[in-house]
Order: sequence, then structure tokens, then C-alpha cells
Amino acid sequence: MPKLQNDTLIRALLRQPTPYTPVWLMRQAGRYLPEYNETRKRAGDFLTLCKTPSLAAEVTLQPLARFPLDAAILFSDILTIPDAMGLGLYFAEGEGPRFERPLRDETSIAGLQVPDPMRQLRYVTDAVREIQLALAGRVPLIGFAGSPYTLACYMIEGGASDDWRTTKTMLYRRPDLLHRLLALNTRSVVDLLTAQIEAGVHAVMIFDTWGGSLSARSYREFSLAYITEIVSSLPHEKDGQRIPIIVFTKGGGQQLEAIAQSGCDCVGVDWSMDLGEARRRVGAHVAVQGNLDPLVLLSSPEVVRKEAIRTLEAFGAGPGHVFNLGHGVPQFAMPENVAALVDAVHQASPKFHQPG
Amino acid sequence: MPKLQNDTLIRALLRQPTPYTPVWLMRQAGRYLPEYNETRKRAGDFLTLCKTPSLAAEVTLQPLARFPLDAAILFSDILTIPDAMGLGLYFAEGEGPRFERPLRDETSIAGLQVPDPMRQLRYVTDAVREIQLALAGRVPLIGFAGSPYTLACYMIEGGASDDWRTTKTMLYRRPDLLHRLLALNTRSVVDLLTAQIEAGVHAVMIFDTWGGSLSARSYREFSLAYITEIVSSLPHEKDGQRIPIIVFTKGGGQQLEAIAQSGCDCVGVDWSMDLGEARRRVGAHVAVQGNLDPLVLLSSPEVVRKEAIRTLEAFGAGPGHVFNLGHGVPQFAMPENVAALVDAVHQASPKFHQPG
Repeated sequence: MPKLQNDTLIRALLRQPTPYTPVWLMRQAGRYLPEYNETRKRAGDFLTLCKTPSLAAEVTLQPLARFPLDAAILFSDILTIPDAMGLGLYFAEGEGPRFERPLRDETSIAGLQVPDPMRQLRYVTDAVREIQLALAGRVPLIGFAGSPYTLACYMIEGGASDDWRTTKTMLYRRPDLLHRLLALNTRSVVDLLTAQIEAGVHAVMIFDTWGGSLSARSYREFSLAYITEIVSSLPHEKDGQRIPIIVFTKGGGQQLEAIAQSGCDCVGVDWSMDLGEARRRVGAHVAVQGNLDPLVLLSSPEVVRKEAIRTLEAFGAGPGHVFNLGHGVPQFAMPENVAALVDAVHQASPKFHQPG
Repeated sequence: MPKLQNDTLIRALLRQPTPYTPVWLMRQAGRYLPEYNETRKRAGDFLTLCKTPSLAAEVTLQPLARFPLDAAILFSDILTIPDAMGLGLYFAEGEGPRFERPLRDETSIAGLQVPDPMRQLRYVTDAVREIQLALAGRVPLIGFAGSPYTLACYMIEGGASDDWRTTKTMLYRRPDLLHRLLALNTRSVVDLLTAQIEAGVHAVMIFDTWGGSLSARSYREFSLAYITEIVSSLPHEKDGQRIPIIVFTKGGGQQLEAIAQSGCDCVGVDWSMDLGEARRRVGAHVAVQGNLDPLVLLSSPEVVRKEAIRTLEAFGAGPGHVFNLGHGVPQFAMPENVAALVDAVHQASPKFHQPG
């Protein structure tokens, strides 16, 4: 890994002092950028974009060319793992991800194998290496994977759902079967994130997009337990550098204390809770990432500035805040609003980092 | 109002001792019941069912004929208010509610008027009277309305949305306009709930289905402030009997303390949080309603019993728990599972209500 010219993100994730609050945005490379849509068109479809390292590297870098962001995030998709298991991922236009062969019974789950990141997911680590070459140490690169439960939701349901009823029916009727799948997903995520770390990412994030749809009790048993296992299984260092781990459960505000005890370095927070309260609840040993309402990016630069400053104020003074949205950049976000956001965080945050 | 033969629900809402935990279910009259589908078919469509008092009364009573529930809830829809304002409510098959004339600008909002419950919404109070005649005081009848913000979501968006981006764009760009609409919705809800109380309901519930999609700060300003105004404006007694008020914000777990301070008697809790924690957080003066994961009703009677008992245990001993789901009965719930649930609550709850 080349030495980082800007390591503000890594320091903030480790709760070390920084001169300002670092900012990056979930889904910062995406459909709100015309240049992204160009590249995607050239790729033909979303999955080809993910699977072609040179194109994935290209779109990863696009938002950094526009905005002085403090991190890049690998362009990929959490569902590459079940795709590598043979479920047949495809994206129906305007309908989100789908699987040709969703898991519905014992036999289909029994037949699954942990993918080898060096074979079926080689394109992921190849993209990491291409991005690192192009980034040349300007800012850190974040790697990521989906949580075992979130992957299971899509694998069982076959696509997105508003209540995940097939998954939950399995949870309540055949918890043993769901646990078997979650154990397999856990090993797959550990292998993929380890490979990303070996290939050179500086931090990793686990996206638990659907853990928040579970009851408090089921969340701990079926989602957080496996996330905790991943955190404890990952290499925590590479070449003497600590590799921070971010855990984000959307809708997981009730569970912040428990998430903070998973062993992660930073807890992601969605926009539904006050960031100062989140900070108090996770305690003094874990950083906090978030949590501006993504739809603020549909307003105006003035409103974006005001709301960004409110988010900084909610967290308050001191280290340990990584500025982000509470979820991904929306498709209809205006690039000038993203520019205003990054600028506002950089301009307004130094006063929250005065020594003493 | 005839004297109630079973007033367990009212006592529990007021945190008075009861011999067991009362149970009713949101959307207990609905598509999971074959007799409901029969009546709906006879009505022709959902809206005609809502607007025909004899049919609304018929479906209100259907679940009580099957299960020994401790309350009936008026069969109606929260969107009858904007329909009465002239927005043209309709239900596209399988797509949920839609408005022919959604609100998108200042002019359309300026032209709105508070509906007169005795005229445009007469069918609602007529249904209340028909139901009360048929119920003859067996159990209490709950009236309801949507929260001003939840109504505004549908009125602005024109139908359901996964991010309510049109509504939130107005919130961030034209908060003045949204506040004007919310004030109008507040007066409309107060008028309709007051009319329901006059017509004989024993308790009322405010459904804030989409308040949980707001940031913590916006929730207080755009949803809870108006709910609080409704609570303080409603008659709290009828014929010397207290009329308890339940406030339910789905996804509002972060805000339970604030909701409990709205002046309501009971806070509804969705399935995402532990009910014992909810009880501690709302404090000693407010009852708690909830919060079994609705999708448990897709499992089996044995699992339903086990999960119902866990919910009772999570609340613990003492008065102030109204058993319910964390959201409505799902369309694919099995009636035998609903039967098992009501039975389990009645069988297992008395030990949580031992005197002393």
C-alpha cells in the first residue's frame, strides 16, 4: 500500500484527533452522476460494470474527480457473493436485483459452497488493485460486503421485498436452516473481505441493510451474532496498519449499544436518530458514521449547508465522527448539492476539532 | 354508550389492574379472512366497503365472531380525510392507495378545506353507530385516524413511496407550505376523531405510519408536534368515561420518550424493539401497545404461542400492556395462527397480573 496523503478517515475511524471531520458518501458513485451513467451505458449493464475491473475502477474514481471526498469506496455489489454461489444474479430494469434460482428448501441450501475469492470473485480484488494504482494513496479505499442476514434475505426471497415474508417464514419455521445459510454466508464474507484487505483496502464496511426489519431478539440471533463473528475473524492489521471496520445496520437504532460491542471500530447510523444520542449510546470506544437524511440532497445548496452543520453540531466537539449520509446518495440528488455538502463539512467542521 | 361487558382494554390503556392482558390486532378485519374477502367482493371495491356503513359494520365484527378479541376497531381507512377534501382516492388493484389529484404546489394546498365530518364523512360516524348497535357493549370499539404527516405523505406523493421523496423535497425546500398542510390535516383529524367519540367509540388511535421515515429533528417538528396538538384538542371524556388515546409511530422507536410526553395514554410500539425496554423508556404514566412481529402469523400455532409468551415476558408483570402486533395482520396470515395468538395471550397472561 502506498502511504496515504490524506488519512483523515482512518484517524477518525480510530477516534484519533483530526483537523476536520472527514466526509464520504454511501453510493457516492452512482446514477446521480452523468459520467457514471455514461460508463454504465458503455458496460451494457450494471453487473458487467461490477465484473469489469477497469470499469469498476473508473466509476469508483468519478466522484473523487468532482468532489474533495476523504475516501473512495470500491464499486461493487453486496450480491456478488450469492452470484458466485451460482444463484444467477440479474438486474431487471427499474426493479432492483433478482436471482434466477432463489433458495427455498433444504436441498438448495445444502448444495451451496463458500466461493473462492481468488476464483469466482477475482474481479473484486482485481478492481481493488486497479483502483489503488489510480488512487496512488490520495485517500483511503474502503472495501465492503453485505451482512450474512441481508444476503440471506435476497437469496431466499429472490429479490427485494417490503416485508421479507419468505425469509421470515423460514426464520420462524426452520431457524436451523436459516442458521445453516447464515454460517455459510459468514464464511463467504470473511473470505471476501480478507481478500479485499490483502488486495489493499484501508478499511472495510459491513452493510446490514435489512437487519432492521427483524425483531430485537431475532436481530441479535440472526444478524448481529454473525456480524460479530466476521469482525472477530478478519485480519485487523495489514503491513502494521490497523484496518478499521465499520458496521451499519439500517433501521438498527435500537441496537446501537449491542452493535458497538461487536468489536467494530465504527457504527454507521441512519438518519432516523439524533447523532449526539447515537454518540452517547455507542460509548467512548467506537466512532460514529452518519447521518444526514439522503433526501436533503434533493433540496438546495443553502439547505444542504444548514442541515450539514446541524449534523456536525449534533455530534459535537471531539474526534470520532465520520460524516456521511444515513443511507446511499439518491438517484435524483443534484451534484451541486453534493458539492455543497462536502464543502460545508470541510468548512464548518474544524471548529469541532480545536485542541484542548 | 351501553355499559361495557368487557372493559379490559380500557383499563389496560389507563394502566389500571386487569385480570389478564387484553389483545386486539391492527388490521384484524382484513384479507386473511375468507369472510372479509366475500364481503369486499359484494361491495365491489375497498372504498365502497369503507363508505357503506352496513358493510363496514359487518367486516368490523367478523374477527370478533372467530376470535375472543378484547376490542373491535372501526373498519375504515386513514385516507378518507384527503378523499373528503376532494383529492380523489382510489385503490389500484395490488398497488395500494392512489390519489387522482395529488398536491404539488401552493395553489392546490391553498384551495383545501377542512371536511365537515357530518357531511363529507358522515359514513364514518354512521358506521360507528351501526357497529355499536351490533356490538351491544360486548367489547370496546376503537376509532382512529392517520397522523397529519402520514396523510400529507400520501396527499403530496399521490400514493405509497419507498422514500417519500416528493414530500421530503417540500419539507426541505418549502417547510412553510408543508406546515400549512399539516395544520389543515390536524384540524381535520381533530374534527373526525371528535365526531367518532361523539358517535360512541371508547378509545381512539392515531396511526403515524410514515413519521418514522423522518430524521429525529424533523419528526418532532413535522409529525409529533401536530399529533400532540390533536391529543390536547380531543375531548378526553364522554358521559363521564375517559376516552384513552393511543399514538403509534411505526419506526418511531427512537422517539418513545417524546411520544409518551404528547399527552396520550398509550404508545404503540413496532416489532423492532424489546417491549421491556419500551416500557422503561415511556415511563410509569403511559401504557404500551404491541409488539409481536406480524410475520409470526405465517409460521405455526406452536411458534405463535412461544413468541406470544416471549412478548408477555418482555413486558413483564403489572398493568399497562395492551397486546398487539407491531403492525397490521399480514394478508397471508393463517386464521388458525391468529386463533392461537389470542388464546395464548389469554391463557398465559394472568400470571403477569397477580395482585401484590
